[in-house]
Amino acid sequence: MDLSSFLTSLGTSFLIFMVLMFLFTWLSRRPENHVVYYSNRILMGLDPFEGLRAPRNPFAWIREALASTEADVIRVSGVDSAVYFVFISTVLGIFLLSALVLVPVLLPVAATSKIMMDANDTTSVGAFDDIDKFSMGHVQEGSPRLWAFVVAVYWVSFVTYYLLWKAYKHVSGLRAQALMSSEVKNEQFAVLVRDIPPVPHGQTRKEQVDSYFMAIYPETFYRSIVVTDNSKANAIYGELEGYKKKLAREEIIYAESRHDGNPDGTRSTTRTGFLGLIGKKVDSIEYYDEKIKELIAKLEAEQKVTVKDKQQCAAVIFFNNRVTASAAAQSLHDTMVDTWTVMEAPEPRQIIWNNLPKHFYERQIRQYVIYFIVFLTIFFYMIPIGFISAFTTLDNLKKLLPFLKPVINQPGIKTVLEAYLPQLALILFLALLPNFLMFLSKAEGIPSKSHVARATSGKYFYFSILNVFIGVTVGSTLFSTFKSIEKDPNSLITLLATSLPGSATFFLTFVALKFFVGYGLELSRIVPLITFHLKKRYLCKTEEEVKEAWAPGDLEYATRVPDDMLVVTIVICYSVIAPLILPFGVVYFGLEWLILRNQVLKVYVPSYESYGRLWPHLYTRVLASLILYQTTMVGYFLAKKFFYTPPILIPLPIISFIFGFICKNKFYRFFRSTALDVACRELKEIPNMEVVFRSFIPPSLSCEKGEEYQFEDALSLVSRTGSTF
Amino acid sequence: MDLSSFLTSLGTSFLIFMVLMFLFTWLSRRPENHVVYYSNRILMGLDPFEGLRAPRNPFAWIREALASTEADVIRVSGVDSAVYFVFISTVLGIFLLSALVLVPVLLPVAATSKIMMDANDTTSVGAFDDIDKFSMGHVQEGSPRLWAFVVAVYWVSFVTYYLLWKAYKHVSGLRAQALMSSEVKNEQFAVLVRDIPPVPHGQTRKEQVDSYFMAIYPETFYRSIVVTDNSKANAIYGELEGYKKKLAREEIIYAESRHDGNPDGTRSTTRTGFLGLIGKKVDSIEYYDEKIKELIAKLEAEQKVTVKDKQQCAAVIFFNNRVTASAAAQSLHDTMVDTWTVMEAPEPRQIIWNNLPKHFYERQIRQYVIYFIVFLTIFFYMIPIGFISAFTTLDNLKKLLPFLKPVINQPGIKTVLEAYLPQLALILFLALLPNFLMFLSKAEGIPSKSHVARATSGKYFYFSILNVFIGVTVGSTLFSTFKSIEKDPNSLITLLATSLPGSATFFLTFVALKFFVGYGLELSRIVPLITFHLKKRYLCKTEEEVKEAWAPGDLEYATRVPDDMLVVTIVICYSVIAPLILPFGVVYFGLEWLILRNQVLKVYVPSYESYGRLWPHLYTRVLASLILYQTTMVGYFLAKKFFYTPPILIPLPIISFIFGFICKNKFYRFFRSTALDVACRELKEIPNMEVVFRSFIPPSLSCEKGEEYQFEDALSLVSRTGSTF
Repeated sequence: MDLSSFLTSLGTSFLIFMVLMFLFTWLSRRPENHVVYYSNRILMGLDPFEGLRAPRNPFAWIREALASTEADVIRVSGVDSAVYFVFISTVLGIFLLSALVLVPVLLPVAATSKIMMDANDTTSVGAFDDIDKFSMGHVQEGSPRLWAFVVAVYWVSFVTYYLLWKAYKHVSGLRAQALMSSEVKNEQFAVLVRDIPPVPHGQTRKEQVDSYFMAIYPETFYRSIVVTDNSKANAIYGELEGYKKKLAREEIIYAESRHDGNPDGTRSTTRTGFLGLIGKKVDSIEYYDEKIKELIAKLEAEQKVTVKDKQQCAAVIFFNNRVTASAAAQSLHDTMVDTWTVMEAPEPRQIIWNNLPKHFYERQIRQYVIYFIVFLTIFFYMIPIGFISAFTTLDNLKKLLPFLKPVINQPGIKTVLEAYLPQLALILFLALLPNFLMFLSKAEGIPSKSHVARATSGKYFYFSILNVFIGVTVGSTLFSTFKSIEKDPNSLITLLATSLPGSATFFLTFVALKFFVGYGLELSRIVPLITFHLKKRYLCKTEEEVKEAWAPGDLEYATRVPDDMLVVTIVICYSVIAPLILPFGVVYFGLEWLILRNQVLKVYVPSYESYGRLWPHLYTRVLASLILYQTTMVGYFLAKKFFYTPPILIPLPIISFIFGFICKNKFYRFFRSTALDVACRELKEIPNMEVVFRSFIPPSLSCEKGEEYQFEDALSLVSRTGSTF
Repeated sequence: MDLSSFLTSLGTSFLIFMVLMFLFTWLSRRPENHVVYYSNRILMGLDPFEGLRAPRNPFAWIREALASTEADVIRVSGVDSAVYFVFISTVLGIFLLSALVLVPVLLPVAATSKIMMDANDTTSVGAFDDIDKFSMGHVQEGSPRLWAFVVAVYWVSFVTYYLLWKAYKHVSGLRAQALMSSEVKNEQFAVLVRDIPPVPHGQTRKEQVDSYFMAIYPETFYRSIVVTDNSKANAIYGELEGYKKKLAREEIIYAESRHDGNPDGTRSTTRTGFLGLIGKKVDSIEYYDEKIKELIAKLEAEQKVTVKDKQQCAAVIFFNNRVTASAAAQSLHDTMVDTWTVMEAPEPRQIIWNNLPKHFYERQIRQYVIYFIVFLTIFFYMIPIGFISAFTTLDNLKKLLPFLKPVINQPGIKTVLEAYLPQLALILFLALLPNFLMFLSKAEGIPSKSHVARATSGKYFYFSILNVFIGVTVGSTLFSTFKSIEKDPNSLITLLATSLPGSATFFLTFVALKFFVGYGLELSRIVPLITFHLKKRYLCKTEEEVKEAWAPGDLEYATRVPDDMLVVTIVICYSVIAPLILPFGVVYFGLEWLILRNQVLKVYVPSYESYGRLWPHLYTRVLASLILYQTTMVGYFLAKKFFYTPPILIPLPIISFIFGFICKNKFYRFFRSTALDVACRELKEIPNMEVVFRSFIPPSLSCEKGEEYQFEDALSLVSRTGSTF
């Protein structure tokens, strides 16, 4: 790619970005769009502009984002969002500090280096063009100028260590602050118990669980919920809610029809058969009313059966203080580790109830099977990616799709296509995967949604690193040199290292496209806006339905994290080879910080809170990128015939491992469980245990009036008699 | 080695064994020796023969050993000893079940195989002699008879899995039983805290610790002991105890001298200077009396200073119930994992106080440094072992020490020397190491003696496997084939496999020597008996000194375990190659069981109790031996040109790893910490916390009358005021 097509690409991206910015400014001012651009504030009952000055200024949102503090983010969106900002600003800091030194030092060193034109150089195919001149590939083999690059490798590494360490400490503090808050947080009083052994003869499951915990915690055990197989109750509950919605809708339609000069209104009819298409014609409102009554009775009956007869081998246990709950979650309860396994309870809204009764070994087997499936997925995707990078050159396209020739040959279109085609193909391709990986992660038997999100993100990260980064880089040269790898697996690193410079410009464009177009779309929310207006116009009748149409969703870490991580890996790996990429990385994370601040404060609503458990996941991957970078640099310096490489560069990955080891030792365990020193802080009020307890009852078991009596009766037989202990 | 020298070796060993047995029968009957042969019973205040029938029968001890139950062992010697018997009987079971199948099946298969005399066969140098005929080396390469050996490999493996699983379950039960006992065990109410951060301004260490735990455990925290630097107090205490002993001794000498017709007696004198050799001559009794008074005052003053000013960053915390203590030991207390680290308290008698204040990272660095030293030790010992196996052939001896020629050439002596020389050299050599390894393990910063014993045993195990087993086996052929290993590290296994049969007879003799002579010495206690009588006659004056002279010591797991493990590894690795070794293994562990039962019930006094924590250590090493065996069998079958090897034998080590993984998942954690279900069992009395607390005060701080006041004052300032919380 030459300079002009690179600049065209950048220019077009920037143009799109400016258009989207303008759209955002224009659209977000119109009151009917407020629900899309200020969803979070509206849901919290705030006026969209309450407390904000000068909403008319098109750049007001930037000032607001910059003025907001971490405490604001935590208040509005929780610790997880704040932790994500720590991640963004840490990476931003790493890139900024690296760029400040590397760009002014390395670019001149590389650009003024004498050119050695080998036939088979390691840089882009063809001659050195203007961009490649600024890369390390332009420096002569064995030249003393390489020392500047060695120092740069160290600088990037130590900046990363320093900022990661600071961030880990800071996030530990955020998590501790949140967990020691004096607010009552229901999940802090509960633990999950799984793998309960078979019920002994003459006891119910409920009695077994209650007597077990009553013996261990005579003073602090409050009550328990035995997990039940709710599938049938859930189905009935879902049907019931459906009819309720339909009823509300019909009533509104009926009310509207009465206004239109027809005082009686028209009552619509429906058919009782399949999908309302066949069967007897009846009055809709009456029919739904009847159905609802019927289903409520059915649900109540089913609830009784479920609670009594469908108890399974898992339970939620409640304690009347936080210290006991958090100590219990960390302690071994039974001599056999695979029974009565106890863990911290996630928030009720993020529990995946179906996964709770899965057995210890079943979980482990599922995990390994799924790792294997993911492994296969990652490696069979290699093939399509290979095809894409082969297809997406213009010459190939012209050959394969000759009818496109006249279009492609126009110079304007040609440049644009040349700049975008490969990147667009890649981005579209990557959109297919997350749901599949999410499904797989759920199938592992993980009990909380936040953990599933992390597991998905982890799998997706492997995928993107292997397929996008390594795949694109090595892809073209891989097959021809496959035999040399078979002989000596170490040459894989050398291969990666020598293929790196060739793809530098590709990734430069890739990153620029991601931030200009990606963040432009993110900020302007064009897609949700259009969807909302279409739905509102043609589908929604009730308030409830409108609300659903503009529901903003959460940050979707499962895909956001690996996307950002891919950029982290690309930028960090190219930081020394092609320092030009660093400013792009800075802009990427700078824009992300700004736009995400706006979105977090005004749009997204987090669907769970894991108190920063995401952080070790992020930290590990940044460190892994650093190690990948250090390893490829060893290979690349070797390829550059820089003979001091082994003694000087090999210590770096070792230092990284030691750094990781110390961080893990010092910080990690607190992210897995709550420290007692944190849990023992005083609460501002005595917790109402009844409320805590009820918050964990799934909606399908608690929705109707009958519940009071029923739960008193069925759920707390033992704890009631237990109170006389 | 030919058959006759093998039989001579066996015969001589057996003869020595019989002589030692006879000595035991004769000596143990004599009342003045009872303290050596019945130490444990005497220390427990029992009559040596109380409850035992027919002490006159020379084989009575065998009947008594066989009649004793596991409960007897636990009662007399604790869970650790019982667990050791589980280990012995498990290994005995493995060898017995293997022998029952392998000996009658494989010996005929091997012996009737046609001999293929290759020049470079893998068996002993020279021709097949009578013993080697019964080994797998005698079977032709690629012969279908090898299938019998394949089946045998599987049989041994599955017998091992089955018995290890059963044993692990049984030991878990023993540990649970002991920990849920209704007796008050002081250490179950305490935890150790290490890595306490620096004292905040305006607080004492004591206040810091007490307020920290009071906040977390307002109702269950009882009191704390801050670990102090006792080195000075210990020195004074040691001096004081020394003078007390000397005084007692002088008083007895004086009393004796009065009886001998001299009514005034002779009062001995001593000099006040260095070692009593120089300086002023004074009356001993008066001098010692004065010294003791002086030292008591000095100790009291030092105790006050120590308790107040020498507090360090570790403490023992007491709780008033077992569940809290065991949950606390398993919970994270501070957000930073490297501060306020909490662990289960070992028994007071096995705490290594000096190691408690060592810091988190100091401990880790020490550990790695020591691993490195051990690694060096293991590999530099290779060289002497190599020398020994080169020297200890008679021909070499004759060449190097020609003056021995006339002695060696006598046929009787020649046979004996030929049979014993290499083995004796090896055994002597191995006796040098344990103390060094024990010292290293202590320097790691491990806080309990039982853990140090395990760490030492682990290091010693590596040593003996690498140097004795692999060293002797491969040693001779290693140097000549060193280059082939360099080219292909995998060939190490093949090398080991092909060298195995050659050393079979060596190890046969080695095992036989170990059990006949080793257990003969163990049972007859000749060495302790002679030492005791010598000391009693020439050194001991006071009762106390006599008691010290016959103090039996404990089982010394640090050396006993690796010794037995070496035999386990040898026998299991040779089980299929030379099935003749199995009966030897059976006799070894059969005799060990019998003789150790006798010694445990009547002689040894355990110096600590770790509630079976030794077991995972034993189990892991048995499993490791099994995996070593399976791997070498893969190599050996490959060397035998048995082409079904990869699909048929390679799954075995994989199964072993899965087995180990499951066992670890299911059982291991309970051996690291106490399950709450176990800790919550009721006690038969309310524990006297004052007694629990006092049991942890080191003797040098608690020996004199002043303690009451002092400890009340200095140790429990906060907990006293705390009781008004």
